[in-house]
Amino acid sequence: MSLPIIGYLDPAFFELLDELSGMLGEVFKTKQRAFAVAGAGSAGMEAGLVSLAAPGDTVIICSYGYFCERQIIMAERLGFNVIALRTEWGKSMDPQVLADALKEHPETQLVVGIHAETSAGTIQPIAEFARLAHEAGALFMTDVVTSLAGCELEFDEWDLDFAYSGSQKCLAAPPGISPVALSERALDYIRNRPVPPTSWYLDLSLIADYWGPDHVAHHTAPVSMIYGLREAVGMVLNETLATRWKRHEANADALRAGLEALNLDMPISKEERLDQLTVIKLPKGVDDVKLRTQLLDEYSIEVGRGLGKFAGEVIRIGLMGESCVPANVFALLNALEKVLPDHGFEVAKGAATAAASAKLAENPSPLYTA
Amino acid sequence: MSLPIIGYLDPAFFELLDELSGMLGEVFKTKQRAFAVAGAGSAGMEAGLVSLAAPGDTVIICSYGYFCERQIIMAERLGFNVIALRTEWGKSMDPQVLADALKEHPETQLVVGIHAETSAGTIQPIAEFARLAHEAGALFMTDVVTSLAGCELEFDEWDLDFAYSGSQKCLAAPPGISPVALSERALDYIRNRPVPPTSWYLDLSLIADYWGPDHVAHHTAPVSMIYGLREAVGMVLNETLATRWKRHEANADALRAGLEALNLDMPISKEERLDQLTVIKLPKGVDDVKLRTQLLDEYSIEVGRGLGKFAGEVIRIGLMGESCVPANVFALLNALEKVLPDHGFEVAKGAATAAASAKLAENPSPLYTA
Repeated sequence: MSLPIIGYLDPAFFELLDELSGMLGEVFKTKQRAFAVAGAGSAGMEAGLVSLAAPGDTVIICSYGYFCERQIIMAERLGFNVIALRTEWGKSMDPQVLADALKEHPETQLVVGIHAETSAGTIQPIAEFARLAHEAGALFMTDVVTSLAGCELEFDEWDLDFAYSGSQKCLAAPPGISPVALSERALDYIRNRPVPPTSWYLDLSLIADYWGPDHVAHHTAPVSMIYGLREAVGMVLNETLATRWKRHEANADALRAGLEALNLDMPISKEERLDQLTVIKLPKGVDDVKLRTQLLDEYSIEVGRGLGKFAGEVIRIGLMGESCVPANVFALLNALEKVLPDHGFEVAKGAATAAASAKLAENPSPLYTA
Repeated sequence: MSLPIIGYLDPAFFELLDELSGMLGEVFKTKQRAFAVAGAGSAGMEAGLVSLAAPGDTVIICSYGYFCERQIIMAERLGFNVIALRTEWGKSMDPQVLADALKEHPETQLVVGIHAETSAGTIQPIAEFARLAHEAGALFMTDVVTSLAGCELEFDEWDLDFAYSGSQKCLAAPPGISPVALSERALDYIRNRPVPPTSWYLDLSLIADYWGPDHVAHHTAPVSMIYGLREAVGMVLNETLATRWKRHEANADALRAGLEALNLDMPISKEERLDQLTVIKLPKGVDDVKLRTQLLDEYSIEVGRGLGKFAGEVIRIGLMGESCVPANVFALLNALEKVLPDHGFEVAKGAATAAASAKLAENPSPLYTA
């Protein structure tokens, strides 16, 4: 990102875009369109919504967390006829709920379902959602902010229409750019829809045209962010996706073994939980803000707060990308062991790191060198 | 920008936001809100439009260039009743045209006028536009992408409601973030409008709340871009705005003296032209693409192409921010002297750089050290 800036219409920059587009395609596992929206993951979210449906259209949103609720807010602002299918936070949604809703709303234009809900720590059956959406003639878009490069994702095989991610999760680049994949089917829809998307900045067909073979000018591209994303994606492909997924699984396993040894409650079931993000129910009497502040101030460890319904009830531990290594698992377990007694929650000394060690001996983390 | 990333909700990061907000206020010359939209200048443009008017509202757009036409496209997509006041490209708009339109459309919610039109190379009387808009009870928003930190701009004194810029022009930061200023009057309107803006990502009231005293979470902030903007704005304030404006004027003067000595035609009048960007009419027979490609390939100098109506007719020479120094004036004049004869346009050897030298002796550029 410290390289000199070149023009966003410079032929040398187009070469970089072409290269990065191909590399992103490998990460998303697609031979269709892969590029990046110039904004946060939420810009990718809004780009999908505004591009893939028009005001008045029926849009079904599967909701099982805070970021699903953000999608609903956006979709309502955009004037869609929003059908929210709400499932308990912390659970994977039963696809039958979607099948029933699609039967009731055969006019549905778009189905939306998040793959890995970061607020609730759950993985969701999006391949099945996509299949049901297409059977009903709808498009399917998903959020892979936390899943991309951290667990299995197969854009083409699962027949997704649009997936957006963030740069700062398992890709381990700085935040501020949203890698996306788009199906040709979805691109055709955008190009032929009766009215253009209400947003020009987030119109996915215009962004795809800038990243496409003709490199049609749109807004000025964030050149340094694209440099940074290129390097981060290169590191992912050097490690290989399979090894990176394995690394996320092994370190999450070790973390969970340690948290169990601390007698902390992880409310998400084995089948429904994420490796990238582990949800812990706060023990009775432990104050959310005080605990997180102490971890940050005394141990330089930032853990996530509970969002929405989970505010004050849980903390969320991310192990993603570059930070997903045994050293960080041990650092956090050690910090929790030291800090929790200050909050009135007694723990056995040394048990957590010993449990994590044992788990890593059994299921080792691949070595990671940046 | 190479500093380690910290969380966008980390108290240490809030300190940085507070500091940068104050510094941006100094650059915009406002004691009201100053912050940054997480996207290109076009994101700032769309944020203003989507936030300051609602579908069906009458919005007057003063149009005298390519980026004004982009505003019109955005405003039409947003479902506004768009009144486009088109003035000849290369001229400043007569405020009487706006006064007449406001008389005809007393229901106008928002007036839009670009300060420095980069495609046409013109400066526009936005203080007068703002006065007329307010007399008619409308809000006034402007584009200061090319003007901010390159020529006089007085947000509060001129009583503007919203101004957006880009990071990569006279601020000389990498592209990808849009510094903005917002009046309390405009913020009140957004907070109290009957329906929220159709965009959540670009809702200026939500972005202002993240940058405000309570730092309410919105999307993940582009941390490294904010680091970069902080440094760039620091360099602007170290130089002082007055000196920076003077530097832009002195180097543009020298450039223009050199271009005149080359017998090149600068079609914008002295009163209407910008210092940051100089428009040259291509001499008969000189091919736009060949000339620009040769300058880029042989001299590593990128000059702008003509946009819209001006495509193929002009080239545009930017002298902005860090690049606005005598060395670059001489480099370009020397390159043109060498290259133009290849395109059938003969020039007097040495005349251009001599004329620029003479002008700089008379009206020196302040020294600039990064």
